[in-house]
Amino acid sequence: MALDPTKMADWQIAEEAEKTMKTVYQLRDELGLQEEEVLPHGHYVAKLDYRKILNRLKDRPDGKYIDVTAITPTPLGEGKSTSSMGLVEGLGKRKKNVTAAIRQPSGGPTMNIKGSAAGGGLAQCIPLTPFSLGLTGDINAIMNAHNLAMVALCARMQHEFNYDDEEWAKRGMPRLNIDPRNVELGWIIDFCAQSLRNIIIGLGGKMDGFMMRSSFGIAVSSEIMAILAVSNDLKDMRERMGKMVVAYNKKGQPVTTADLEVDGAMTAWMVEALNPNLLQSIEGQPVLVHAGPFANIAIGQSSIIADRVALKLSDYHVTESGFGADIGFEKFWNLKCRFSGLKPNCAVVVATIRALKCHGGAPVPRPGLPMPKEYEGENVGWVEAGTKNLVHHIETVKKAGINPVVCINSFYTDTKDEIAAVRRLSEAAGARVAVSQHWLKGGDGALEFADAVVDACEEPNEFKLLYDLSMPLRQRIELIAKEVYGADGVSYTPEAEAKAKKMEADPDLAKLGTCMVKTHLSLSHDPNIKGVPKGWTLPIRDILTYKGAGFVVPVAGAISLMPGTGSNPAFRRVDVDVETGKVKGVF
Amino acid sequence: MALDPTKMADWQIAEEAEKTMKTVYQLRDELGLQEEEVLPHGHYVAKLDYRKILNRLKDRPDGKYIDVTAITPTPLGEGKSTSSMGLVEGLGKRKKNVTAAIRQPSGGPTMNIKGSAAGGGLAQCIPLTPFSLGLTGDINAIMNAHNLAMVALCARMQHEFNYDDEEWAKRGMPRLNIDPRNVELGWIIDFCAQSLRNIIIGLGGKMDGFMMRSSFGIAVSSEIMAILAVSNDLKDMRERMGKMVVAYNKKGQPVTTADLEVDGAMTAWMVEALNPNLLQSIEGQPVLVHAGPFANIAIGQSSIIADRVALKLSDYHVTESGFGADIGFEKFWNLKCRFSGLKPNCAVVVATIRALKCHGGAPVPRPGLPMPKEYEGENVGWVEAGTKNLVHHIETVKKAGINPVVCINSFYTDTKDEIAAVRRLSEAAGARVAVSQHWLKGGDGALEFADAVVDACEEPNEFKLLYDLSMPLRQRIELIAKEVYGADGVSYTPEAEAKAKKMEADPDLAKLGTCMVKTHLSLSHDPNIKGVPKGWTLPIRDILTYKGAGFVVPVAGAISLMPGTGSNPAFRRVDVDVETGKVKGVF
Repeated sequence: MALDPTKMADWQIAEEAEKTMKTVYQLRDELGLQEEEVLPHGHYVAKLDYRKILNRLKDRPDGKYIDVTAITPTPLGEGKSTSSMGLVEGLGKRKKNVTAAIRQPSGGPTMNIKGSAAGGGLAQCIPLTPFSLGLTGDINAIMNAHNLAMVALCARMQHEFNYDDEEWAKRGMPRLNIDPRNVELGWIIDFCAQSLRNIIIGLGGKMDGFMMRSSFGIAVSSEIMAILAVSNDLKDMRERMGKMVVAYNKKGQPVTTADLEVDGAMTAWMVEALNPNLLQSIEGQPVLVHAGPFANIAIGQSSIIADRVALKLSDYHVTESGFGADIGFEKFWNLKCRFSGLKPNCAVVVATIRALKCHGGAPVPRPGLPMPKEYEGENVGWVEAGTKNLVHHIETVKKAGINPVVCINSFYTDTKDEIAAVRRLSEAAGARVAVSQHWLKGGDGALEFADAVVDACEEPNEFKLLYDLSMPLRQRIELIAKEVYGADGVSYTPEAEAKAKKMEADPDLAKLGTCMVKTHLSLSHDPNIKGVPKGWTLPIRDILTYKGAGFVVPVAGAISLMPGTGSNPAFRRVDVDVETGKVKGVF
Repeated sequence: MALDPTKMADWQIAEEAEKTMKTVYQLRDELGLQEEEVLPHGHYVAKLDYRKILNRLKDRPDGKYIDVTAITPTPLGEGKSTSSMGLVEGLGKRKKNVTAAIRQPSGGPTMNIKGSAAGGGLAQCIPLTPFSLGLTGDINAIMNAHNLAMVALCARMQHEFNYDDEEWAKRGMPRLNIDPRNVELGWIIDFCAQSLRNIIIGLGGKMDGFMMRSSFGIAVSSEIMAILAVSNDLKDMRERMGKMVVAYNKKGQPVTTADLEVDGAMTAWMVEALNPNLLQSIEGQPVLVHAGPFANIAIGQSSIIADRVALKLSDYHVTESGFGADIGFEKFWNLKCRFSGLKPNCAVVVATIRALKCHGGAPVPRPGLPMPKEYEGENVGWVEAGTKNLVHHIETVKKAGINPVVCINSFYTDTKDEIAAVRRLSEAAGARVAVSQHWLKGGDGALEFADAVVDACEEPNEFKLLYDLSMPLRQRIELIAKEVYGADGVSYTPEAEAKAKKMEADPDLAKLGTCMVKTHLSLSHDPNIKGVPKGWTLPIRDILTYKGAGFVVPVAGAISLMPGTGSNPAFRRVDVDVETGKVKGVF
């Protein structure tokens, strides 16, 4: 059956493509992997034993390393995963050995509004259902490891409160004297459960926990997801797992997972999750899926381990960082690459004409509603105005010292003149530009794109970090705000400022990285301001400590770590064919 | 290396045995399964595609069907899983085609006090670590499916409250008018999180859910775990998933998962979980692991699907029901066999001399503390007195019309005269008796046991249910209380009695099954009363509706659906070898 995205839904294309997809055993042989290095989960998904592979191939040179980022997206997304899949398919058509690494989607958006995060059209990751619904259980492992820390914390608080000194002494454990008003960690769940944002727990009698305020965040915002993304190996993960700050004691000193003696058990739940998952594009290129999304409220990167493995297995490895270059790429650049020591060769900035029009003045499209009429006809003026946002992100990539490639993720309504305007302004800003029709044509539509990336990788580049870890925290935040977001400066709530000062003075915290939390829908903290906002100040309202992940988390604006489920959620349309077991409606 | 359980911990034995265990590909070939019927999860665990297998083998006759139950256990357990593994190993030594089905352990006890639930000594299920830590993710799938229903419920309550009629009408969904004081469903998590037993959720603003009381239960007590255990196929599961009562509306009418339009999506998260997991005994017999424990607060059975598949694959299939025959076996008998239509050939009642002494008057042992000195020497008097508990359970098995086999799970301190006393009293009650040394010697120690089971299966038996579903609820509860527990009668709180009357009058509920919640540590509702309690009344304090699972749940005594984590929890001793990835300390 011919696959025609103008006539078929994404899931129908995936379903057709899955009829002839490669088994993991074929992928294994094509990648030159050995039997014990590939742990099948069914016949079409596998986990890769990263340790065995990296050990065997440690002397093999790495392939070229390409990050895919984007302009500031509309709420509909600009097809970054689609473009990542399109790029590997295009490179595949050019007979390159290629791999990709993308992130496992969260159940929250999948069940709420977003549907699949596997790409679209003829540029998708398959098999689609396991990809969309939990895959091999990495996010569940994070949920278990994280919530076990909360179980340990709350039980400890209960028992220390219930037992007098004499009785407590029998247990041979010190008192941690946790301050219930100063508990940093909450629980997690992988859905958009706004009802659990603010809760009171521990009601009941003396054996029913400890009464205090608490909260649930979405699983992918967990510090453990960040640890999964940035760990270089199990030893690294084990060390990080013990450093997580869960609360402060009555003296204001941090209490960690190691103090609770739960860090070993937490790691035990995570051992398998450290192995990246192997899937494929619908044209059969290997795709590693590992770590999670939400670069606005989390690190939002595919994992270092997935990239390390893939760089040994291919000549071109395409990895993905979430949302726009201000968010995902900045964290790729200054956190992920810092932790891994890997140097990217090029970064792709994905843009759609639709989003550029939005940045140039067209009404903002809303998920679930039809596109505003204004998007129907040609409007070169809006496109030109909106390309300023694209140019801003091109400049961000150039600040990292690597070569930018603009991918115009093409749509049938785009006009020649609109595309010409983007090309002219982007090339003037120093970027290669490719128009790509991977959505419509798969790899055959992505040849120009693939060639531009190959060319960019051949050129010299001088990757450099934006800041040194010796730079004081507030100075660093200001640098990111000015250089990457285009702000005039930074303001702090009194609470956040006090935290920042304390962190700058604490030798344990001063040299951690900086992982910003900020909306992805604007270069600023205000999701409603499009284009390139000018004359504004970034307001920091809180700073979290993710010591295990290796960074502090300044939180800008009103963003929440737990999204909400809307009034017409996607789960209404999900069902199962009881005869075949096929899941329907996740798209 | 010779495996010596007197010198090695269980996990050391497992680790040694795992060095030479069969791959799932070997097990597949030995079982005559086809490639597409076996979905490997790594090389030593697989999921079985039950649908393909049952379809291909539908005309093959079933093997003999053996349930393993026990006397009323001490808090240390009497080795029911150990004896199930011992029995398959013994039958294996007798060259029988044999399979077992046991339940996946819950993370709660594993991380709290219990450690492994894989058996012990030379009678264990391996590989031990995946078995103990989440296996292929079935419990996580239950957690996601269950909590998605709560997400749907709370979001619906928020949006219906926030929108006026005109605005709500635009969504094309009816108002459900859920009564926040009458929400039946809580959330679940697979740990012992007493802090989440009683909580208040939805604090904050108008987009932060709906403020109300709520609660978390342990995942394995979820109605969805019961649905997993009793579903005959995916179609059956899909239908059950829509019938779950989550709350009542302002008129007191039930609101279901189907009303929330979330039942299809819940099923989507459960499709893979419906396939049983294939592991092995340390002597290489196939062991299916499926559904969950806690027969006190849940159905606590290995699944119907696992039994159906195994009965097609072997001549003798050993399945396990939780705790004593009053709890697990009663539910196997009157719920699981009713739903499956399968007829067991024999039931094994496992007993230890230690537990019989406890029932006969010796001090009750406590987990984590040394065994009381009283257990050191011979005490035939205590054993004789305690055997009354065993005889009570033998009689329960006989009421089901099947042949009981007593397995004395032998320990090196047992004396000849103690064993002789048990043998004499059990045989007088009409049971076969076997002394088994599977813990010490594996299958070679379980030959007498295996022979007794083979003999019992050859004898005629007339399996019959205890009650017909036309019997009114309170009459049924009284029948179970008198015939199975030995109570004089049943009492109700006013709330429970009102619920019972309403259920008896409701044609939708009157013919559901009855799944009792009661402590496993006594035949009565009081865990402190050992032996065979006389002259007591069973107090019912509540009755839950598990309409999807197909039963109502009368709750006896003070038992909670969320256990608590103690002051010296097992997670303290769990860690990971960062060089090998091996998990240590789960035993």
